[in-house]
Amino acid sequence: MINPIFEIIGLSAAFLTTSAFIPQVYKIYKDKNADGISLTMYIILFIGVLLWLIYGVLIGSVSIIIANGITALLQLSIIIFKLKN
Amino acid sequence: MINPIFEIIGLSAAFLTTSAFIPQVYKIYKDKNADGISLTMYIILFIGVLLWLIYGVLIGSVSIIIANGITALLQLSIIIFKLKN
Repeated sequence: MINPIFEIIGLSAAFLTTSAFIPQVYKIYKDKNADGISLTMYIILFIGVLLWLIYGVLIGSVSIIIANGITALLQLSIIIFKLKN
Repeated sequence: MINPIFEIIGLSAAFLTTSAFIPQVYKIYKDKNADGISLTMYIILFIGVLLWLIYGVLIGSVSIIIANGITALLQLSIIIFKLKN
């Protein structure tokens, strides 16, 4: 178990770096357009985020699990949108 | 100390998610143009990445320290470019 005070810092970090990603998802769904998005880059990022998620589970870090779990879902929604359009 | 095998997974994650960010920095410096970049978003991301860096030091995670140290430098170079132009 990681010190809960450390997790407050980690969760603040997670909130800032994950929420910065939401406007991109919103823009793609609003415009119904993902032409400016590189599918290759998103797939590489998605694999990286899944590895972070596994790492978070292995070291028992709630902050890493939450941040990368949410980011993985956001990225997956972009990848699915891109593949369907 | 975190299990070195876990750190191999973490460092692989760090490599994938950090290197995905490099083409953006390269594009800005090549085009000498950062008009498409939101300064506010980058400052929020930068604060988030600094918090991840502190979290990495607190829990003793080499992967988190390396990933967010490099990302912080890349983001800082974009913020400085944006402020000077």
